[in-house]
Amino acid sequence: MQKNPSASSLGPGGLDLAQAFFKPIQNTDPPSSTKRHTKISVIGVGNVGMAIAQTILTQDLADELALVDAKSDKLRGEMLDLQHAAAFLPRTKINASVDYSITAGSDLCIVTAGARQNPGESRLNLLQRNVALFSNIIPPLAKYSPDSILLIVSNPVDVLTYVSWKLSGFPSNRVIGSGTNLDSSRFRFLIADHLDVNAQDVQAFIVGEHGDSSVALWSSISIGGVPVLSFLKNQQIAYEKQTLENIHKAVVESAYEVISLKGYTSWAIGYSVANLARSLLRDQRKIHPVSVFAKGFYGIDGGEVFLSLPAQLGRGGVLGVTNIHLTDEEVQRLRKSAETILEVQSQLGL
Amino acid sequence: MQKNPSASSLGPGGLDLAQAFFKPIQNTDPPSSTKRHTKISVIGVGNVGMAIAQTILTQDLADELALVDAKSDKLRGEMLDLQHAAAFLPRTKINASVDYSITAGSDLCIVTAGARQNPGESRLNLLQRNVALFSNIIPPLAKYSPDSILLIVSNPVDVLTYVSWKLSGFPSNRVIGSGTNLDSSRFRFLIADHLDVNAQDVQAFIVGEHGDSSVALWSSISIGGVPVLSFLKNQQIAYEKQTLENIHKAVVESAYEVISLKGYTSWAIGYSVANLARSLLRDQRKIHPVSVFAKGFYGIDGGEVFLSLPAQLGRGGVLGVTNIHLTDEEVQRLRKSAETILEVQSQLGL
Amino acid sequence: MQKNPSASSLGPGGLDLAQAFFKPIQNTDPPSSTKRHTKISVIGVGNVGMAIAQTILTQDLADELALVDAKSDKLRGEMLDLQHAAAFLPRTKINASVDYSITAGSDLCIVTAGARQNPGESRLNLLQRNVALFSNIIPPLAKYSPDSILLIVSNPVDVLTYVSWKLSGFPSNRVIGSGTNLDSSRFRFLIADHLDVNAQDVQAFIVGEHGDSSVALWSSISIGGVPVLSFLKNQQIAYEKQTLENIHKAVVESAYEVISLKGYTSWAIGYSVANLARSLLRDQRKIHPVSVFAKGFYGIDGGEVFLSLPAQLGRGGVLGVTNIHLTDEEVQRLRKSAETILEVQSQLGL
Amino acid sequence: MQKNPSASSLGPGGLDLAQAFFKPIQNTDPPSSTKRHTKISVIGVGNVGMAIAQTILTQDLADELALVDAKSDKLRGEMLDLQHAAAFLPRTKINASVDYSITAGSDLCIVTAGARQNPGESRLNLLQRNVALFSNIIPPLAKYSPDSILLIVSNPVDVLTYVSWKLSGFPSNRVIGSGTNLDSSRFRFLIADHLDVNAQDVQAFIVGEHGDSSVALWSSISIGGVPVLSFLKNQQIAYEKQTLENIHKAVVESAYEVISLKGYTSWAIGYSVANLARSLLRDQRKIHPVSVFAKGFYGIDGGEVFLSLPAQLGRGGVLGVTNIHLTDEEVQRLRKSAETILEVQSQLGL
Repeated sequence: MQKNPSASSLGPGGLDLAQAFFKPIQNTDPPSSTKRHTKISVIGVGNVGMAIAQTILTQDLADELALVDAKSDKLRGEMLDLQHAAAFLPRTKINASVDYSITAGSDLCIVTAGARQNPGESRLNLLQRNVALFSNIIPPLAKYSPDSILLIVSNPVDVLTYVSWKLSGFPSNRVIGSGTNLDSSRFRFLIADHLDVNAQDVQAFIVGEHGDSSVALWSSISIGGVPVLSFLKNQQIAYEKQTLENIHKAVVESAYEVISLKGYTSWAIGYSVANLARSLLRDQRKIHPVSVFAKGFYGIDGGEVFLSLPAQLGRGGVLGVTNIHLTDEEVQRLRKSAETILEVQSQLGL
Repeated sequence: MQKNPSASSLGPGGLDLAQAFFKPIQNTDPPSSTKRHTKISVIGVGNVGMAIAQTILTQDLADELALVDAKSDKLRGEMLDLQHAAAFLPRTKINASVDYSITAGSDLCIVTAGARQNPGESRLNLLQRNVALFSNIIPPLAKYSPDSILLIVSNPVDVLTYVSWKLSGFPSNRVIGSGTNLDSSRFRFLIADHLDVNAQDVQAFIVGEHGDSSVALWSSISIGGVPVLSFLKNQQIAYEKQTLENIHKAVVESAYEVISLKGYTSWAIGYSVANLARSLLRDQRKIHPVSVFAKGFYGIDGGEVFLSLPAQLGRGGVLGVTNIHLTDEEVQRLRKSAETILEVQSQLGL
Repeated sequence: MQKNPSASSLGPGGLDLAQAFFKPIQNTDPPSSTKRHTKISVIGVGNVGMAIAQTILTQDLADELALVDAKSDKLRGEMLDLQHAAAFLPRTKINASVDYSITAGSDLCIVTAGARQNPGESRLNLLQRNVALFSNIIPPLAKYSPDSILLIVSNPVDVLTYVSWKLSGFPSNRVIGSGTNLDSSRFRFLIADHLDVNAQDVQAFIVGEHGDSSVALWSSISIGGVPVLSFLKNQQIAYEKQTLENIHKAVVESAYEVISLKGYTSWAIGYSVANLARSLLRDQRKIHPVSVFAKGFYGIDGGEVFLSLPAQLGRGGVLGVTNIHLTDEEVQRLRKSAETILEVQSQLGL
Repeated sequence: MQKNPSASSLGPGGLDLAQAFFKPIQNTDPPSSTKRHTKISVIGVGNVGMAIAQTILTQDLADELALVDAKSDKLRGEMLDLQHAAAFLPRTKINASVDYSITAGSDLCIVTAGARQNPGESRLNLLQRNVALFSNIIPPLAKYSPDSILLIVSNPVDVLTYVSWKLSGFPSNRVIGSGTNLDSSRFRFLIADHLDVNAQDVQAFIVGEHGDSSVALWSSISIGGVPVLSFLKNQQIAYEKQTLENIHKAVVESAYEVISLKGYTSWAIGYSVANLARSLLRDQRKIHPVSVFAKGFYGIDGGEVFLSLPAQLGRGGVLGVTNIHLTDEEVQRLRKSAETILEVQSQLGL
């Protein structure tokens, strides 16, 4: 599917033209040791996968984009639709295939495949439909791109990131779940919208499990670098703990709200994942709340578990986990998240 | 729907915070005579409208984006999904409403509303379903943004651009159809893909009616500034006219192919329209094949008709039409396109 | 100087071509009420002014750029050098003149004119040479662009911002000094470099007078949203106050160091000012430490004085000043900065 | 010089913080086989070198930038001035040293070192001062980055590109001179300015020797894909050959004009070279007029010579040379350019 068949069928006249137009130069392949183009593969071309692929394309984050899906018609349609915009974009090689060999040599593999979250469906309910799927996705990805970073988006993201880690055999720093990166963005939007400031000036983390049991880190909220809670304290402004809880509740509900209104979420997760892709591939060393191997942090020691913590991301994947101070209550919630996930994992028999 | 209700419901504690956090400055509204932010409205939040809106957002082309659609749930869902990405994007005000008053003061109104083209359906068949719709869309847009540019994307685009011109009362330079801008991009992609060059280095126009009767301007094809046909002639390379026709045929069929494969087209039209929006709003004075008022060009004098010609676009809308040399055969095809469209228009009773 | 004379001298053949090539469209000027292109004027085309102008051009922040300087040769040379890059950039109208009429209708006027800071020269010493100059610059700018925002970069920036406010008659929210925006960036770089994190993840403000008496706000330092001082306290890590003071000292010295090494500073101030221009013109509502009318804040009540405070910037100029909590010592230092500046101002006889 | 000494001198408190703040992750270095960050080295930090370095930084073309110059003070000053902007830019590692080991592993080495062209000095006169210099520059570059592409900007560019090819031992496809890429941009600007179109819509090549004997390819000029000469012929518009020659003369003179007005050229060559860097490193396969190994093209067979021809550039360097049709007169001029350069080269004794 890589070479456009329509183009190939243009006939021998076309071929002559190509040969006549350029006098080729010898030895133009870059020496193999420096073959340094950036390749991203996106597995699953549903609404989420395509929003990610298109945002990556618009933001010019890759030199090559490979799409994989089981539905060959849909897949080819999406590939053609992106390719047709070539005149409006920097040149990016866009390929698509049902065969994973097309992903060979990827720097980053983004997995979005999975059943779509139905209106009202809890994220945990999606699990059993997806674990089986992943056993057909992760091993070929790991085989064709043994040095790549795996970025898991499918839900329930924390468990599926764990599953991907097990199936890939990769070191844990190269297996990441999109986790609460999007939840944190929604959190930052709600605060920014309320105060009429730029959301990029709002620092605020939601960590833990992506979903209903996520943990908002109130002490981490700052605006333009000004810590909000200590500001309120210094200004002797009383605030209701309930107010803060309401914001967190609004974040959790907003995903369900979008799904109930338009049937799925796509744009925000697309931007969120493209943002992670940029930090990873361009070695930005930025801190993002993403699902990482969490055993040993904050007293989480009940087993091997992935959940979101503020982690520094770069070309090597997860470079470190921010040693943030949590309140006792926050630590308790985080551990509870870990236990919930571990319990689910124990039923998988991996 | 403009103010996020979740945020509003955060309670009085939130309000106190907003007031405490900033000491406001007097007179911070810009003087009205210089209220120069850029506002784009997108009418219709289906696949095409949202691909356009999201690409405009990613490419940072507007300071304010207003979405209008008749389906309020879908509309609010799409608005929230875009807003949730605020932390990853430059700050853009994103509003949505079923009421056209939200579009007031737009610089550019992009109309994508209309029935979706079904697999196999000719573009002309869509017309009757859409003309009625437009009589409810264009007059309020013209009322709320009397100085805006109208950019029509709905199909059949040439007739609906004419309809929009009539309904708006705007001068013809401020009513534009996306026309063959996308067809030309597909044309450029197919040529570039075949020769393994950058599609941005391929100049090639498809003009006339957007659809089956479009006209490929072979004499206009150049690669990196080298005219292809005279190159072939100079190199004494014979080529079959059929080869060229096959490329054009592939372009026409590619829209149908994408629709049959994925059910609709979205990404390429999104990039195509964002590309036009940029030329218009940033006064780029670039030449694009778009649907313009064509009476008087190339002997088209049978009536008031819009069809695609290479036009120079800038902040004033259509600045001029390129006085390109066409072969007699190309002129004949163009006039035939015009006649076909005029015949359709005559049945509308406008 | 606006129209390139070389082009004009191309002769009548050229003119015919222009007329023949496009069939112009009637009424293509945008209605005057919507003439919404963005115009930035830069006064002074020395190293600082040109670094600003070139960064604004590369970052595509304006549709029109006007350059003014007293040296007409240097001015024309710089204009041509930017114009010659047209093929590599989005189209931007670039004009230059010794006459301020060229700045008419600017959205933002950036003043960099002034004697260059000599190696070892204190910023305050530059003053008397510059005040006289400003009385010839600010009144014509205010006359030709009565609705613009004035952004002062020349040193000593706080006093010259005050001088510009007095000479312009503008409301104080539309007169801003670049202030400690660059100092804060150097502060953030030093911290980021030391911790090997992304400088964009470091929030840290230097406020007060731009120069030797600036005030570092230690309590405002956070990394990825984690407040550093309270982190250290929570982790029971002792730190020497001297360590913090050393970082501040390194910031203050780094400007002198660059000047002693290369003779002037240019690139960093260019990026810093382009960053402010973006927040202002694209209404980003971001918080920047810039020189603003400070009377009434933090007990500064000795007179009309501009100095840097964390301010929210948008299309209306200064939208608000962040009501940040300062320690008593920080407040004392800030007031001392204000007194120093006021004392200088009292000698100017304005 | 790589690690900022000021930061290093922050003391042990600083070090503790770094270790405390992040819990590092094991194995975070990317596997060596995939160490795919993009590194550009710029040799020479004069006005041209710094304009290139700064434009590359603004346009985010590299993950690492290494600067080399013989003057260590100037070099360190320029490095610090770029580093201080870190908060306003994507994270890029910026290093500088007088020692070429800092360039190790570069993907692209851009050489701008050389005596500055004096007002009125012909480009060829610069040669003897520069050849000696290159024998100290090219061998260490080739040694430390054996797989890199060499991009020569110093004048006389064609001869120095030849010299670099000989000194490096690289295959000719990986040694490129910036050549007439800038001359062509000036050509496109003059035409665009005259016709009030976007310079990016003007295709026009100047080829041959960079300098007074360059050759304008009139047949290659097209605007928005419309070939201008055949347009004029079809429209039966007479034009004076002198008009065309005047445009070419204006291009040649414009470099001298900028030098006489501001003392040197910088911005346009900075954008021009950044544009080439992008095509090369992001494998854009775009066609640029640059100095390439020209033996065997257009009957140039008198010896090994580099001069500018429209060449397709990508990750492998020069991928091919466009087989453009030249008139007999154009071919004669090109050959004469080649002979002039060869004669100069024969005096170098390489």
